[in-house]
Parts: sequence; C-alpha cells; structure tokens
Amino acid sequence: MLTFWQDYPEIQEKLKDVQGLMAARLKINNQEIQEALEKFISRGGKMVRPALFLLFAGIVPDATSDEAQLIKIAASLEMLHSATLIHDDIIDDSPLRRGLPSIESQFGKDVAVYAGDFVYTVYFELLIETMNGTPFLSKNAKSMKRILQGELTQMQSAFNAQNTARRYMKAISGKTAELLSLSCLEGVYFAGGNQQMQRSARKIGRAIGLAFQVYDDILNFTVGLDEADKPILTDFRQGIYTLPLLLAKEADASAVMPYLKEPELLTRQECLELAELVKALGGLTGALMVASRLTDLALVEIQKLPPSRHRQILEEATTILLHRNY
Amino acid sequence: MLTFWQDYPEIQEKLKDVQGLMAARLKINNQEIQEALEKFISRGGKMVRPALFLLFAGIVPDATSDEAQLIKIAASLEMLHSATLIHDDIIDDSPLRRGLPSIESQFGKDVAVYAGDFVYTVYFELLIETMNGTPFLSKNAKSMKRILQGELTQMQSAFNAQNTARRYMKAISGKTAELLSLSCLEGVYFAGGNQQMQRSARKIGRAIGLAFQVYDDILNFTVGLDEADKPILTDFRQGIYTLPLLLAKEADASAVMPYLKEPELLTRQECLELAELVKALGGLTGALMVASRLTDLALVEIQKLPPSRHRQILEEATTILLHRNY
Repeated sequence: MLTFWQDYPEIQEKLKDVQGLMAARLKINNQEIQEALEKFISRGGKMVRPALFLLFAGIVPDATSDEAQLIKIAASLEMLHSATLIHDDIIDDSPLRRGLPSIESQFGKDVAVYAGDFVYTVYFELLIETMNGTPFLSKNAKSMKRILQGELTQMQSAFNAQNTARRYMKAISGKTAELLSLSCLEGVYFAGGNQQMQRSARKIGRAIGLAFQVYDDILNFTVGLDEADKPILTDFRQGIYTLPLLLAKEADASAVMPYLKEPELLTRQECLELAELVKALGGLTGALMVASRLTDLALVEIQKLPPSRHRQILEEATTILLHRNY
Repeated sequence: MLTFWQDYPEIQEKLKDVQGLMAARLKINNQEIQEALEKFISRGGKMVRPALFLLFAGIVPDATSDEAQLIKIAASLEMLHSATLIHDDIIDDSPLRRGLPSIESQFGKDVAVYAGDFVYTVYFELLIETMNGTPFLSKNAKSMKRILQGELTQMQSAFNAQNTARRYMKAISGKTAELLSLSCLEGVYFAGGNQQMQRSARKIGRAIGLAFQVYDDILNFTVGLDEADKPILTDFRQGIYTLPLLLAKEADASAVMPYLKEPELLTRQECLELAELVKALGGLTGALMVASRLTDLALVEIQKLPPSRHRQILEEATTILLHRNY
C-alpha cells in the first residue's frame, strides 16, 4: 500500500526505510510470531502516521535533525499503531486486517496477545533510544493512555442504543486523532520547529485524524452494497454505532431504533434497508459535512505553514486521503 | 497477603504505600476495568518484587534516595508484574488469580486485553517519572522483552514431550527470575549503591527467582492430592511440563511418556498415578535439590552484603519464602 505515496518518492523512500527498521527490530524467538509480524509489516497500509511525521519534519525550515533518528521515531509511531491494531483485532474477532488474516484469526488469541505486547516493547525501546531526557517520553505515555481510553469508550458504547454523536467524537478523538496529532507534533519538534509550528502541527493532525475516521465510518455504510458476496455494515453489526447512524437516529429515532435491537442478527436485506434509511435521513450527508469541515480546517492551517515542497505534498496527500469518492 | 510481611512492619508499611499509589494511578474511564483492577491490587499477593526492591534499597549504607521516588519505582515493578499476569491469564484461560476470578474469566478477554495494556501504560508513566535520563529505562525495556520471551518459550513448549530441563530453566529464567533480579538491582541502584553491590543484587535476585519458580512448580505436583474436590496438576494438564516431570522423564522416559499423549484428558486417578510416578522416579527430590542449591546460593551472597536490619529481614524472608514445607 506504499503505492499511495508513489508520486512522492522522497516520502516513499523514507517509508521503506521505516519498514526496514521495523522488520529488523521485530526479531523474536518465536517463528510463528516472527512470520506473522513480518507479513503484517510488509503489507504496511498507507503508513499515514510515519508519513505525516516525516512530512512535518520536512516542513521545518533549517531543520536540525539526524536522519537516522527521524526514521526511528517514525517507526515508533507505526509500532504503537500496529500494537493497538493487533490487540483490537482480538477484541473485534476480526478475520481480516489489511486484506490478510489478522494475527488473532491466523494464530489464535494467545499469539496475538503476546505479539501485541512484544510490539509495545519494541515501541518502548525506540522511544528510549530517541527521546530519553525529552518531554516526549511522557507525551507518548499520555497518548498511549488516550488511545486506550478511546478504545474503551468505543467498547463500552458497543450495542448501546443511547450512544450519541458527542460520545462518538470523544471515542474517535482518542482512538484515531490522538496518534495522528502526536505524529505531526513530533515531526515539528524533532526537526527543531518552534512552538507556534508545534501547536499548528497538533491542530492539523487532530483535524486530519478526526476527518479520516469519519470518512472511514461513512465508507462502512456505502461500500459493498451492490456486491452480494461482500459483508456489509460490518462495524454496525458489531454494535459499533458511528456518526452516520447516530445522526440518522437524531433525525428520526423511531425509524432507526428497531434496527438497534439485535444488529448482529440482521439479514443482508435488512442491512440494505438500514443503509438506505441512514442515507434518506441525512446521516451520510451530515457526516460528510463534518468530515469536510475538518478537512478544510486542516487545509487552512496547512496553508499557514512556511511554503516548501513538503508542505505541498502534505496538502495534496491530505486532499487525496480525505476527499475520497463516495 | 501482605500478612506475609506482618513481622516486618517497616516493609509492610511501605508496601501499603505502594498499593495506595497503584490504586491511585490505575484510574480509568471504564468502571468495569477500574473495579477489576482495584480488586486485583487489594489482594496484592506477597508483593515480592516491590518488597525485594525496598529491602535492597534499605541495605545500601548511607543511601541517597527520596522515599517518594522509591515507592514509585517499587510500584512500577508490581505494575509490570500485574500487566503480565493479566495477559497470561488470557493465554491460560485461568479461572482464578490470587483466589479471585481472573480478570479474563470475570470480564472476558476484551476487558482483559485492554486492562493489561492499561497497566503497561501506567508502568511506562512511572518509569518515565522516575528514570528519565538514567540507563534504567532501557534496562526495563530489555527486561520486559526477556519476560515476554520467557512466556513465549513456555507457550511454544506447551504439550511438547521433547521439552527438556534446560529449556525449562531458560523459560523460567525469563518468566520469573528476570523481574526479581531487576527488582533487587534497582533497589541498590536507586539508593546509590556501588557497582559491586549492584552485581550482587542481580545475582541474588536471579537465584531467588529461579528457586521461587522451581518450588512453585514442585507444589503443583504435591498440592491437593488428598482433597478430592481440588483440581490437581493444573499446569501439567495445560501442557506445561515443569522440572519435576522433566527430571522424572529423564530417569525413565518409557514410564512417563504415555501420560504426555493427552494430558488434558487424564482422569484424576491417572493424575494421582503420575504424581506418584514423578515422586518415585526422583523428580521431586531432584527439583528440590535444584531449588535448595539456588536458595543457598542466594543466602551465601546475602551474607556478603553489609550487615543491617534490612539484610536480616531479607535473609529471613528468603528462607521463609523458599524453604516452605513439602
């Protein structure tokens, strides 16, 4: 999936270095886990977190930074993300991750628990090697806690028909926005950027993170509807009620509530009806408005950064990442 | 279980402070997890790790240390231990922990995964607050990795009839001895003890840790045999082959091997036969010899430390902890 960055070789090359470092660090005395982690990393996803980190580091004028250190910090962000994904897949019993069987479904929960713990350990090592003596060790610990609290808020809200848009925003603020925000902030900080740029980076990261998650959740109500063999509304059926649904419920509770009784038992036909209902009640449009406002906020802030090739890439990537087709 | 320390009020009082700090730090936005963790901590076990840490800190002559810092570091050791226990119980599907339902059996694996992750996070925070800028951040990361590798070695060896005493010692060396060793070492280091004392502390901690685990594993072949309603040989039936069994197998493989075919399906009568066989083949005596040699090694090393009230407690506690009745 590093193809996402193929038009930006300066970033794509560095992300390959990040992947290489991750693979080198994730050596362990257990062949199963080793192989599972190697596959997991080689798939890699878009590597949004290290990419944002590297872009922000590149935007700082007269950056004072050691390239090898930056690659390590970029890797630490992806490590933290990977560890949370591996453990999330245990909670969700997700069969797939990045189009491959999840570590839990392939090797069982035992391996998945330890594999996640191991990735946390390597994350911790990378932090210590790069941040000992800086305030960013404790910032990372705080972010870890917020991410976890976001996951917990989501887990607690599962199958809860009283869930609200407000609570949803709180959950995704921890679950997704926190780490994207930290990625941007660290990019500026470790390249020697000033406080104003640091504040700006945090803000942009947060807006991108929230928008990214809202768009993802919109997709869960639109993807696969026409393809009879694809599972649809997968989050909803696991009791995860996201913004489109919550906005539709606010518009007409009595129409939506019946679907929330036993969402895991709905037939495909009923799911299609619900998707239609969410659309008709303005759930999709409303969520799109939220996401688009957040995207614009990010883009406006990006414009205030000092102009450079990296700023341009950041702007384009944000647009491509967030203004997907629906 | 702090009653273990009731004859040593100077340690018991400090351990209460450690418990108090842990409870204060483990606040989280999820009532279920919060309550589960509170119960878990209030039970507390013997708190061997913080106790060893505090004892070693007390042995250092002219100790240069801030009491509040010491309590935090002591808590960090117990936090790390607790996090690994919570995740281990997922792997083992353990119904009980410290005589109470394990977090996994009471709240399910989802809560247990996140509860363990949360305890790891708080552990990081405590480390960062007390060790930023010292070599002990990376020592902790290394220990974490070794503990995990010990757990993995044990998991990989499960149900493996080819497991050996050598491999067993390697597993418990990571799983148990590593953290006890770190506890003792940190005690000396953070009280300002010299390098010779540090080496000695590491060695003593390692010996106590190995002996502690071997005795524990012996108990699994002796406890409950006379009580018809108690589960017996619980480790063995989960495919965890420990020293008594492995030594018996080395003495007479053909007699022991039949029991290793489907250990989880053995009847109580067959388990009793096996326990008898392990005893008859010298498995218990052999394991006791190993444990007792390790205990003596620890006691000899303790004698070399500067004499003090804390050294005396350490000596007595080691004796009580390890020379239990069998």
